[in-house]
Amino acid sequence: MGEPKRQIRLGVSAIGMGYHIAAWRHPDASPGGNMELAHFIRSAQAAERGLFDMFFLADGVGIRMYDEPPGALARSSKNVQFEPLTLLSALAMVTTHIGLIATASTTWNEPYHVARKFASLDHISGGRAGWNVVTSVTAQEAQNFGHEAPPDYDHRYDRAAEFVEVVRGLWDTWEDDAFLRDKASGINFNPSKLHILNHRGRHFTVRGPLNVARTPQGAPVIVQAGASEPGRELAAATADVVYAAAQTLEDAQAYYASVKSRMAKYGRHPDALKIMPGLMAIPGRTRQEAHDRYEILQELIHPVVGLAAIAGSLGDLSAFPLDGPVPEPTNPRMLSRARILLDMARRDNLSIRQLYLAIAGGNGHRTIIGTPADIADAMEEWFTQGAADSFNILPPWLPGGLEEVVDQVVPELQRRGLYRTAYEGRTLRAILGAAPAPNRHAGAARRAAE
Amino acid sequence: MGEPKRQIRLGVSAIGMGYHIAAWRHPDASPGGNMELAHFIRSAQAAERGLFDMFFLADGVGIRMYDEPPGALARSSKNVQFEPLTLLSALAMVTTHIGLIATASTTWNEPYHVARKFASLDHISGGRAGWNVVTSVTAQEAQNFGHEAPPDYDHRYDRAAEFVEVVRGLWDTWEDDAFLRDKASGINFNPSKLHILNHRGRHFTVRGPLNVARTPQGAPVIVQAGASEPGRELAAATADVVYAAAQTLEDAQAYYASVKSRMAKYGRHPDALKIMPGLMAIPGRTRQEAHDRYEILQELIHPVVGLAAIAGSLGDLSAFPLDGPVPEPTNPRMLSRARILLDMARRDNLSIRQLYLAIAGGNGHRTIIGTPADIADAMEEWFTQGAADSFNILPPWLPGGLEEVVDQVVPELQRRGLYRTAYEGRTLRAILGAAPAPNRHAGAARRAAE
Repeated sequence: MGEPKRQIRLGVSAIGMGYHIAAWRHPDASPGGNMELAHFIRSAQAAERGLFDMFFLADGVGIRMYDEPPGALARSSKNVQFEPLTLLSALAMVTTHIGLIATASTTWNEPYHVARKFASLDHISGGRAGWNVVTSVTAQEAQNFGHEAPPDYDHRYDRAAEFVEVVRGLWDTWEDDAFLRDKASGINFNPSKLHILNHRGRHFTVRGPLNVARTPQGAPVIVQAGASEPGRELAAATADVVYAAAQTLEDAQAYYASVKSRMAKYGRHPDALKIMPGLMAIPGRTRQEAHDRYEILQELIHPVVGLAAIAGSLGDLSAFPLDGPVPEPTNPRMLSRARILLDMARRDNLSIRQLYLAIAGGNGHRTIIGTPADIADAMEEWFTQGAADSFNILPPWLPGGLEEVVDQVVPELQRRGLYRTAYEGRTLRAILGAAPAPNRHAGAARRAAE
Repeated sequence: MGEPKRQIRLGVSAIGMGYHIAAWRHPDASPGGNMELAHFIRSAQAAERGLFDMFFLADGVGIRMYDEPPGALARSSKNVQFEPLTLLSALAMVTTHIGLIATASTTWNEPYHVARKFASLDHISGGRAGWNVVTSVTAQEAQNFGHEAPPDYDHRYDRAAEFVEVVRGLWDTWEDDAFLRDKASGINFNPSKLHILNHRGRHFTVRGPLNVARTPQGAPVIVQAGASEPGRELAAATADVVYAAAQTLEDAQAYYASVKSRMAKYGRHPDALKIMPGLMAIPGRTRQEAHDRYEILQELIHPVVGLAAIAGSLGDLSAFPLDGPVPEPTNPRMLSRARILLDMARRDNLSIRQLYLAIAGGNGHRTIIGTPADIADAMEEWFTQGAADSFNILPPWLPGGLEEVVDQVVPELQRRGLYRTAYEGRTLRAILGAAPAPNRHAGAARRAAE
C-alpha cells in the first residue's frame, strides 16, 4: 500500500503547425494543417494514445504581424488558427480522457463569458476542461478591441486576479446536488443550493447566477504561465498547472522552489500545483537519426524567416552578411531578450545564420535531440531534482513530431516505471491526482451544520 | 429544365427541454436533458434525418429568474444550458449536413470574438455555421456585465447594425485564394490578398486582421428575429434567414411583405432572405391521438408554474380562484403583451387556468395539433400564400416532440412534392440555395482589373 508512486506527466502544446518556424514546410506536414480539423484530431488522438494529461492550445486575439525583413510575413504560417474553445469542443467528441486546455485572455474578455464557455466545455467533455489564463500583451490584440495598446502590467495583473476570482465564484453558483429534477413532485431544483455571486470589485461588477450547472470537475482546471513576480503569486494562489520556460536545471529548480514555496500561505499543498517546463524533444533510434530529423527542418528555414525570428529583439540584420558576426545593436536600450541572444552569439562565436538556427526551434525552451533514452534521462533528471512535475512537449511539427515522442519516448519512460500505463480516471482533475473542486457554499453549509 | 421548384424548408429551435413549460416532466423526457450532450445529439440527428435546414440554439447571457408566485422558480427547468458555440462545435462532429445556428448578443460581446468564433465553427463544421443576432433586452443579462439595465432600444440597434458590419468586414480579411502554402518556394500566403479592416465607428474601433482563414461559406449565415421597424430594416439589409412569430395568416403575410419589400433598396433579391415563422406542431395518427399527446404535457403544468407564465404580463394572480375569471389588472399602464392576454381571456371567456393552459405551449407562436395531413395543410397554406418560406419547428419537448414531426410530417410533405428528399449541398448556404458569400475585396480587385 502506501502513496502511489510519483510519476512523470506530459502535456502537449499543439499550436498551429508546431513550434519550429519551418514546420509547415516539413515534407510530411499538411501545409494548411493549422486550419484543418483532421490535423488536430490526429494530434489529439496521438497525445491521448501517449496517455498525456493535457492537450493545450495557445491563443491570441489578433495576429502578431511584422514584415521585417520584408518578405518574412508571406513566408510565415503564424497567421490563422481555430478559436480554441470551439476547436476543443469538437475534439472532445473524438477523445475520451485527455484534458483539453484553451487559452483565454483576462484583458479582452468578460468573466461571465469565460466562466460559461469553460463550464460548457467541461460538461461536453465529461470533465476535461482547463483554462490557460493569459493577460494579452500585444498592441495588435488591443487594437482589435478599441485600444491602441494593452493596459500596463500592474493593471493587467490586477484585473487578471479579480477576473479569476469572479470566474471561480460563478462556477460555484450551483451546488453539486442543487438539481433534483423530480418529475413526480415537479421540483426541478432546490433554490437554497443556488448562490448569486453579487460581485462588486475594482474591475468587474457581476451579479450571476451562472446559467450552466455545476460542472463534472466542480471547476475546470486553471493553468497559467507566470514567470514574473505577480505571475508566480497568482499561480501559487490559484493555478492547478503552471507552464515554465527554462534552459538549465538550475533555473528550473529556482523557479520550481519559488512557486511551490508561495503556496503554503494560501493554504495549499505543494502537490496541488504541477510545474510543467516546456521541452522540445526530437527522438531518433540513434543520435544521428535524431539530428538528421532536426536538420530536415533547419534546412527549410529561408534566411528571411530566420532573420525575422531575431528581428524582434535585434532589429533587421538583413544588411549584414549572414555568415558574418552578429553586430552590436544600435539601440543602447536593449531588451533583456536581445541581451540573451547577443550573449549567446558572443559566447559560442555564432554568425547571424548560426544564431537564428539556434533559436528556430524551441525558442527559449529546452531542446533535447537524441535517443529515447537520452530524452528520458533528461526528463528524469529534472523530475527527480526538483525542477519539474511534468513536461509540456513542444513538437517541432505536427502531428509527426508529437507522434515520435508518443511512440518512442513514452515506452522508454514506462519501462523505467516513471510513467502511467493507463489513465487513472475520467476527469482531468482525477488524471492530475486531485479530487473534484469543492464548492465554497457546500462547505459553508456543512460547517454551519456542524 | 427551368427553375428548381420552390419547396418548404424546416428548422428547429432546440432550446433546453423544449417549448412547453412542463417539457422536462414528460414521461419520456430525460429531466436533466438540458445539460446532457446525448439529449442534443439525439435532437440534432433527428433534425438531420428530417433534412432540416437548421438546428438553432437560442441563448441568453443570464437567467431570467423570477419567483412569482413563490415556488415557481424551483419548478422551472429554464435555468441552465450549454453555451451554444461550444455545444454546436461538438454537434458538428456527429452531423454532416444540417446548419448549426448559435445565438450571440451584440450588446454584451465584442465583434472580434464573435467573428472569430463563428468563423471557427464554420471551419469545424465544413461550412454549416450561422449566427442568430440578438441585442439582449433583460436586466439580468446586463447585470452580469457591469450594468444595471440594458442600453435603450435605439442604442442597442445602432450598435447591432455596426457590430454586424464589423463582423462581416472581419470575415472578408482573407480572400478565398490568399493561402498558397507552397512548400517548395516557402511562400505561405499572398499579402495582397490580406485586408486589414481598420474600422472606426460610433461603437467600435477594430483594426483586424481576423486570425481565422476565409471560411467554407465565405461568411457564416446571418439569422435574425426582427419584429420592430429597425429589426425589419436590419434583417432586410443583412439577414439570410429571419424568424417570425405570427398566429394568423394575415399577420404573417403582412410581416412577409414588409420585410421582403425592403430588400430591393439594399440591392437584394427577395429570395435571398428566408422568412421562417415559428410553428409548434403536434402530430398524431388521428386528431384525437394528437390532442391526447398534447394533454399529457398540459396536465403536468403545476398551477404555480402556469401562474408564473402569465405573471410577467398580468402580475401574480395566485390570490384569485384558478377557475374564476381573469381579473382586471390593477396597473393601468398595461404592456401590449398583457393586453393581448386579457383580450384573449375576454373573447373566449377563459378562466385563469384556461388562460395559462392556452399559452403554455407555443407562447405566442402558431400551434397546430392534428394529423400529419392537417399540419402539412397548415404549412402549405402559409407557404403558398406569401406568409412563409420555411417553418421554425418549436417542439413541445425534446427529443420526442421533434422526432414525431420528422417521422410523421416530413413524409407527408415529401408525398406532396413540397419537401426535399435529400440535401442539395454540403454547406448551409448551398442548402439554402445560395452561393458562397462573395468577398468584397475580391470583387474590387476584379473590377479594378476590368
